[in-house]
Order: sequence, then C-alpha cells, then structure tokens
Amino acid sequence: MTQPVDTLVRGTLVNVNTGNLEERPVAIDDGTIVALDERPAERELHANYIAPGLIDAHMHVESSMVTLPQYADAVVPNGVTSVVHDPHEIANVIGATGVRAVIQDAEQTPLKARFTVPSSVPASDLQDGGATLPPDLVTALLEEPNVVALGEVMDIPGLLAGDEDVHAKVRAARERGLTVDGHMPRVTGDDLQEAARYLDNDHESITLAEAREKADVGLHVYLREGSSSKNLAELLPLTEEVDTRRLSLCTDDREVTDIVDRGGIDFAVRKAIQEGADPVEAVQMATINTAENYDLPFGKVEPGAPADLVLLEELDSWRVDDVLIDGELNPTEDGHTPSPTNIPTDTVEFPSVSAPDLAITAPDGHGRGAHVRVIDAVGGLQTEPMIAEVPVRDGTLTPKPNEDLLSLAVIERHGGKGGIGRGFVHGLGLDRGAVGSTIAHDAHNCVVAGADYTAMAAVANKLKELDGGVVAYDPVDDEFASLALPVAGLMSSEPIETVYEQFETVESHAARIGMAETGLMELSFLALEVIPTYRLTNNGLVDVTDGKYVDVTVSEHTEEQGPDADRRSIPDDSVSEP
Amino acid sequence: MTQPVDTLVRGTLVNVNTGNLEERPVAIDDGTIVALDERPAERELHANYIAPGLIDAHMHVESSMVTLPQYADAVVPNGVTSVVHDPHEIANVIGATGVRAVIQDAEQTPLKARFTVPSSVPASDLQDGGATLPPDLVTALLEEPNVVALGEVMDIPGLLAGDEDVHAKVRAARERGLTVDGHMPRVTGDDLQEAARYLDNDHESITLAEAREKADVGLHVYLREGSSSKNLAELLPLTEEVDTRRLSLCTDDREVTDIVDRGGIDFAVRKAIQEGADPVEAVQMATINTAENYDLPFGKVEPGAPADLVLLEELDSWRVDDVLIDGELNPTEDGHTPSPTNIPTDTVEFPSVSAPDLAITAPDGHGRGAHVRVIDAVGGLQTEPMIAEVPVRDGTLTPKPNEDLLSLAVIERHGGKGGIGRGFVHGLGLDRGAVGSTIAHDAHNCVVAGADYTAMAAVANKLKELDGGVVAYDPVDDEFASLALPVAGLMSSEPIETVYEQFETVESHAARIGMAETGLMELSFLALEVIPTYRLTNNGLVDVTDGKYVDVTVSEHTEEQGPDADRRSIPDDSVSEP
Repeated sequence: MTQPVDTLVRGTLVNVNTGNLEERPVAIDDGTIVALDERPAERELHANYIAPGLIDAHMHVESSMVTLPQYADAVVPNGVTSVVHDPHEIANVIGATGVRAVIQDAEQTPLKARFTVPSSVPASDLQDGGATLPPDLVTALLEEPNVVALGEVMDIPGLLAGDEDVHAKVRAARERGLTVDGHMPRVTGDDLQEAARYLDNDHESITLAEAREKADVGLHVYLREGSSSKNLAELLPLTEEVDTRRLSLCTDDREVTDIVDRGGIDFAVRKAIQEGADPVEAVQMATINTAENYDLPFGKVEPGAPADLVLLEELDSWRVDDVLIDGELNPTEDGHTPSPTNIPTDTVEFPSVSAPDLAITAPDGHGRGAHVRVIDAVGGLQTEPMIAEVPVRDGTLTPKPNEDLLSLAVIERHGGKGGIGRGFVHGLGLDRGAVGSTIAHDAHNCVVAGADYTAMAAVANKLKELDGGVVAYDPVDDEFASLALPVAGLMSSEPIETVYEQFETVESHAARIGMAETGLMELSFLALEVIPTYRLTNNGLVDVTDGKYVDVTVSEHTEEQGPDADRRSIPDDSVSEP
Repeated sequence: MTQPVDTLVRGTLVNVNTGNLEERPVAIDDGTIVALDERPAERELHANYIAPGLIDAHMHVESSMVTLPQYADAVVPNGVTSVVHDPHEIANVIGATGVRAVIQDAEQTPLKARFTVPSSVPASDLQDGGATLPPDLVTALLEEPNVVALGEVMDIPGLLAGDEDVHAKVRAARERGLTVDGHMPRVTGDDLQEAARYLDNDHESITLAEAREKADVGLHVYLREGSSSKNLAELLPLTEEVDTRRLSLCTDDREVTDIVDRGGIDFAVRKAIQEGADPVEAVQMATINTAENYDLPFGKVEPGAPADLVLLEELDSWRVDDVLIDGELNPTEDGHTPSPTNIPTDTVEFPSVSAPDLAITAPDGHGRGAHVRVIDAVGGLQTEPMIAEVPVRDGTLTPKPNEDLLSLAVIERHGGKGGIGRGFVHGLGLDRGAVGSTIAHDAHNCVVAGADYTAMAAVANKLKELDGGVVAYDPVDDEFASLALPVAGLMSSEPIETVYEQFETVESHAARIGMAETGLMELSFLALEVIPTYRLTNNGLVDVTDGKYVDVTVSEHTEEQGPDADRRSIPDDSVSEP
C-alpha cells in the first residue's frame, strides 16, 4: 500500500538524469519529490511536460535594476527557480555588508539564489569605490550560507603573475571545496592553459573557437545570453562537438527591458531549442549541468530532490503553465508580496555641486580654444582616444554639443575621500541638457554627461536627492525624467514593470535631448577604468592601456614629446581634491 | 616564452571532459598537469593513447586477500590509480580501529584510495563479530581524511521503516556533504522509489531492467564486474538508453585469481569496449563519472589536475605501457617495496578446540540415527533448507561424507564472548578431512567444515596458529595446505602472486579430499546470516527467512507442528556457551 501524497503531477517528464522524455508522474509530499510513480494524492496537476526548475548559472541581479525579491517575481513565473548570483556591483558600493544583505534578501524570496563572492573588488586602485573586498573579507564571506563559489576572477594578469591576493582568494575557495568562477575574455593559448589550472569555468566566450578551446582544457563553458552580450547562437554548435554535461546557460548581465519582454534564463533555453539544440540537452544545460558544477541539491527530478518543477504547455517554446518551488504552486502569485530589501538605501553621499565644480580650468596661454583628450564612445562598451578642440569661456574649457563634444564628470558618491573627475566625451549625441547615473561600473560613482555645466550640476544634485538612479534633464522646459534606484544606488524595490516604465521614460527624455540610442548604457561604462582606452574616474582621466592618468588638456609640446607626454601618477587640475 | 616542464607526454588524448580523442601533448610539472600543449621538457614520453588513471567506483580490498599496498602493486601497472574502498570486512573484525588503519595504509601507497565508512556493521545481531559501528562511530569516521561517502547501506528494510540508527548514519553523511552509497539488490517499485530518496547510487543490479529502473529514479548506477558477480555484459546496453554520465564501473568483490589473471577495474574497461561500448565512454565510466559522483579531484586530464595518467599501446584492448601517478612514472616498479600494514595481525583468538568441542550431542531417544536440519549449499551464495538423517555414534551426531553431509562449526574468534555454532552442510563435497577459513562473511568467525570432528579441530587450531587464513587438511597423510591471512584474519601482507600460489595450493589440496570447485568460496558465506535460507552463526543455526534460531535436530513432532516448530530465540545444545 503506497502512502498518499499531497500532490501528484502527471505529464511527460524531462528526465535530466537519463536524458530522456518519459511518461512518468511526479509524486510530491511536503515539498519533496517522493516518487516518480503513481500515488494517491490530495491534489492532481496535469502538464504536457514536467521539467526541473531552471538555474541561471551566472548573473548579476544589479543589471535588472531591481532587488532580488522583485527579480524573483519577474522570472519565477517563467520557470526560473534558481540563480547563481554574483553581487559584484553591490560589493563595489557597500562591500561585505552589501553581500551579506543580498544573501539575506534571498532568504525571503521563493527563488533559490546561490551566491558567489566577488573576487575583484575594486577593479583597480585608480578609482574610489564604496568598498573593497581584500582576501580576508572574501574568505569570511565564503563561509556565509548559500555561497557556492568564488566569483568570477577577473584579474587574469594578476593570477598568471602569481599575485598573492588573487591566489589567496582562490586558495580560500578551494580549501572550502567551493567552485572558482573565471572571467577570461579572449584569454587563449598559454595564458588560458595557465589560468585553467586555477579556474573552473568561463562565461566570456564570444566565438565558437574560443569556447571550444576552453572546453578542451577542461573548463565548464557557459553559453551566455545577456543584453549586450548575446553569444548563445554563435556558441551553440559546441553542443555537437563536446560532451554537453560541461556546458551551461547563463545571462550574466540582463537588463530590465529584456527580462520583461523576453525573460531571463528561460529565454536562453527557448532560444537554444529554436536554434536547433536537443530540447532535453537545452534543459540539462540550465539545470543538472549547472547544479553539478556548483554542487546544488536541485536541478533534477528524482526522489529526494526538492519539488522545483516547471509545468509546461509546450517544451520547444518553453510555454509555462505553472511553477512549483518546494512543492508550492506559483509561489510568486496570488497575494504574494516581495520582501523589502536588506540592502542599504542611503549610499549616495556627496556635497551638492554647482556648475563651476564641474568645469575644467583652461590652461595658461590658451586662446579662444584648447586641445583636449576626449573619450570617444565608439559603440558597445569600447572607447577610443580622440583629440579635439573645445572653446574656452571665462577661463574654462566648455563642451561643444554641435560637434557631439560633451562634458563629463565623475563624482565620488560614497561619502569617501571625495574628488570629481572632469573630462570630455564624444559619441553620446546630446544636443542640450544632461544625463547622469549612479550606475557607473565598477566603482559606481556618479557619472554625468552634458551639453552645459549648469544642466550637469542639476542632474548630479537630482541623483543625490533620489539616493541614486538614472536621470535625464531638458533645460528647455526645465524638466527631469528620473528612475530612482535607491538600493545601493543601483536598484529599485519597486516591481520590475514599474522600473521598466520609468526607465523607458528616462530613455525617451534622453532621446528628446538628442542622446544616442545606447547612450545610457555606454554612459554607465565610461568610468570603468579597466577597459581600453580612455576612461574617466573620480581621480581623473585614465589611459587604460598603461593604467596611468593623463591630462585632459594637451600640452603644446605633445607632438614633439610623443604619445607618452602628459602621463602622470597624480591628478591634474581637472580633478578637484576633496 | 613558455616555461619548461619536467615531463611532456605525446599521444592521442582520451579527453574525458569533452568526450573526444584529440592529438594533444600533456605537459606535467611537479606532479601536476600544467598544460595540454607543447612545452620544452626535461623528459619526453610517447604513447599511442593517453588516458586518465582509472578509478574503481566501489570495491572491498579484502576480497583480494592482500593489503592495500600489495593490491596497489597488483593493479597500478594496469592503469588503476584510484579505488573507492569500503573496508566493510575489516570493520566487522576490528571496527573503527581497522577503518583508521586501512586509511593509514593508503597514505603509504601510490594508489589513491578513497574510503566509504561501512554503514552496516554488524550485519545482524544474531552473530558475534569482532566489532560494531554504531551511528556515533560512523559519524566520527566520516571525519577521517579521504573519506568520501557513507558505505553501502544494506539495511534497506530498516531504511524504509525509518530505523533511527540507519537514518542517523545517512544524515551524518549528508550534513558533511558526502555521498551515500546504496546496496539495493532486487529492490524495485515503491521500495526503490523510497530508498532512492536517501541513497545516491547502487552497484547490485543484475538485469538490464533492474539497472534501468534505478537509473530512471536518478540513482548513479554502477556496472559491476567482480568475481562471483559479473554483471557488465548484461548491463552494458544501458549505455545506449541513458545519459552515460551517471554510469560507473566497479568490481565490488574481486578475488586474487581474477586480479592476477585478468586485472581489476581495467578488466571492466577492456571488457566494456570488447562488448561494444564506445571506448571514450568506457573510460569515462571508470574516471570522470566516478570522480564527479564522489567529488574527487582526479579522473580527468586538464590543467590543474594531478598527473595520474595511463600511457597506452592500444586503447581498445587497454594495453598499458606506463602509468604515472602525481607525475611519477610507474611508481610501483623498480625497487618500490609496498609498505607494511597498519592493520592488526593478531585478531584470531579462541581457546584451542578438540573434536568433542565441535560435536553435537544426540537428542534423547535417538536410535542409530537422527534427523537434522542441513544447510544445503546449492551453488552461488544460495542455500536451501534440507532435512537428512545422520548417524549417531557415542552419543553424538556425526557427519556422513558418503552422502555429502558434512559437519560444520562456526567458532567465535574475536576473543569476545566465545560460542561455537554447530551444524551440518550439504554440497561442499568433501570425502575426508576438513577445510576452514577465518574469512566468513560478515562476522568473520572461524568456519570449519569436515568429514570428521578430529580433522575439523585440527583445521581450527591451525587457523588459530596462523592468526587466520584458509586451510585444507588431509588426514590420510596428515598434511595441511595453508594460506596464512594474518591481517585481520582476512588478508596477507605478501605480494599478490605469493597469495595466488598459496591459495591455488589450498584449493588443490581441498580438491584432493573431494571438495567441490567453488567450495571454499561457498564456505566463507555459510555463516552470513542475512542471506536465505539456513546459515550457521557462532550462536547456532539461523533460518534467515524469519531471522530466528532453529534447532539442528528435528523433533519427532515437527511434521505435525508445521514448519515453525523448533523456532527459538536462544541457542540449543548445538551451541557451546562461553
């Protein structure tokens, strides 16, 4: 006589253990799968297909601009029941406190978030972020609940050169039996072989050859389908070339619009199938493969596993009817209210600014114009160095919007040592006004670009007033469009649909004043001082090629002195000291 | 400029990560694989194929009758570089002390032995073994180095009934993130579904349907190729039906003759390929699949992994040229001497016996013969109940070798509470003399069968003198043939070839006095009181069907009283009290 259970689900099971589709009921009791067989049940559910809940192998919730509880409400209905979350941006703002807070957030949501401890905070010592995570803090965080890995190790040169801090973090993870995530864009050949000794996986491949080389040296390869990095279609033929058990799907950075319009990691599963992947293998890449990589207790449908199930109308299009997490049906629906966040909401702190604070004093001996170094935002996240002439008015260098030469300022916003970096940017397209954001990778200072210093100061002060966010300002009607992101200055506690609408409003407003389509996204990377070529930090303009500050103004002898002229290790007067 | 390394191996790599054969050199430095690529090297090795060292997923070294260091010398040259060893027999003799000793043994051999903690010691409370492992001791042993799992859980009825001791052991393993090995012969349907909630794997399948059912419910299925259980050929079609990542190869119990003549787990790989398995999948089943199941750091060839490699002349026939472990070439050859064992060698302790000690007093009112219950050894490990008439001489029941009715005695040999169980056995075939062994699953008391009590006493005393072993005695020329197994009374510290020869000598001697071909093996299971039907323990004859002692002598009214007559819970006079 078989024991009665509380729930029986009937349908075709996507058995990720065997790789087969099987007619097989799933019996659930008290949140756990107790049998793959008939049982008398209080409740029967029917589905065309039953799959394990999906796992996003690597993601940063910050990219969605909502908190983890709100993110859960957005993706759980799509069949995403777990994410492996690297709180890299939160850590750059609030350090270990932030990491602990987001781990607490996860305990209050049905989504099973697991965590990797950010390994590369700060990105460099050229900028002042809100916090750093030295090896001792990383080690302490590795002991926190639901931590499954050391987060993506980005400092590959340091790793290869034997940098003690990098290796201390890797060792700390290994000693605890945890996975070590890699971040190896375009790392190849000898460097890849060496890095693979220490790292377990990589999600940065953009070509099939790159992914194949990584798989061959034993790395677990993640096929990424994010917002700016959509690599899945290119990499999918790898499933024909190597044992798929060591392939996973991830989103990495996926923006609010993509999540609302297309979904999270469920979109990657759907797309993989549409692109020709075997449906069961596609599901395996977002369930058991990832679970095995991080030693997660779910991601499969078998007796003893938690009842995290997706009930599908159709497998190939990933059309979801219902979702169970620990046996609970559609846990984010019907009166469910996402929990408030534990992450601080008062992280934007700097003295109010006025136009002169953001202006660059013209060098001695200028005429009516001066040559300056300009960050040329050429598309994607890339920048090129550029030299241009800008007008001098009242002793200051001023933007020249009719030639798309805008002023740029990066204001230290963590209540630290202060400092405002000033410079010029080309490519954002503003005709008037200003835009700004407290999302400014990785230090997440306050970045503002504008056609005049007054508008820029207004935007900066608005961002301060909001405790962070994204703002566009049109001086013609003195109107702001704002998305408040008070959670670490990166995220909102509002529902994702609200954030989506407000973000669209800011984008429209920015477009009205002339901003290029991808301008807001590019803006948030203009301060990332580890991607070539020019970037602006709160300490001044950086030439990433050699990791040195450079003057904004070009001295008269530059051409004679060659390209290395004006290199310096301390900021010039385009930076205000605190 | 690439760093020079100490060793470069050239050949076709069996890449178990990708599932492909690839032309790819393996660069090794200081025992670790540092690259799958060209490197300047102090030493170059060439092979037709390079595979990771093989792992036996489940084995008991005791079955080989040699210590782990000697076992290593036997199998490492075949490309076996690791075993997952369940010291179940050692634990039955010397408990936690024995488990700790064999773990110490492993530290002194190149073979990378990992351990599972025996979960089912004793097999029952009907017999007195040398030691027990209650939950607290099991829990303590789970903390020992190189322990990777709770050993095969045999008490499935207890598990299903919620037995607290069984579940305490399972929980202790789970809390430590360790695997839980199963032992589920013929467990099916609801029982299997329930057992699968707690257990991770099983190696007991004998039919394809049985194995398939286990795979379907998420169990990692081991295809076994032991000495008495050769299941590989039957189960191999499973590789066509399910994702092979969750299949492994194991030997379980493999005897000295098979190991010397055919090999260890390497034989299973060879046989799988011969039976039609894809060679790379066959290697995966004895390397990465097992490594992932137990979270072992080897079993794959990739940068960062230990250099455990098999250099093969031919892949399909698994013809081995050389073996590296941690980069050391053929570590068991050239002047290598296996370490002495840490396991006690003085475990056979009982007072010397004489013929009357082993004889059964005839019941009152007997004539010249009496009816007795006989263990009928029908082949394999099975026994059937049998009733026969034996002669009465001088007031004792005596064997009747001309009808293959031999006397049997089980002497408590652990220096415990003593007790000699006495009975009769049919099917061993002895014409004269006696045979005996201190290998007597699971309690490993001293078991002796013979055509007369004097010969039996001589054999028992010889076993005591040897500190354990296997002995055959021919009274015609008063000659013993002996294999001394002083290590826990189960194993020898001598090289496996020596043990092989001595065992052959004992077998020949036993054959000379009429013993059936498989008699010695059957003898060592006649005391295993958990396999139906009749078994003899040191406490008397047991009917395993209901786990009760029964009288050897059949009372006159038995037929009228039905089959349950003579059931009792305390031994009768066929058992000597201490």
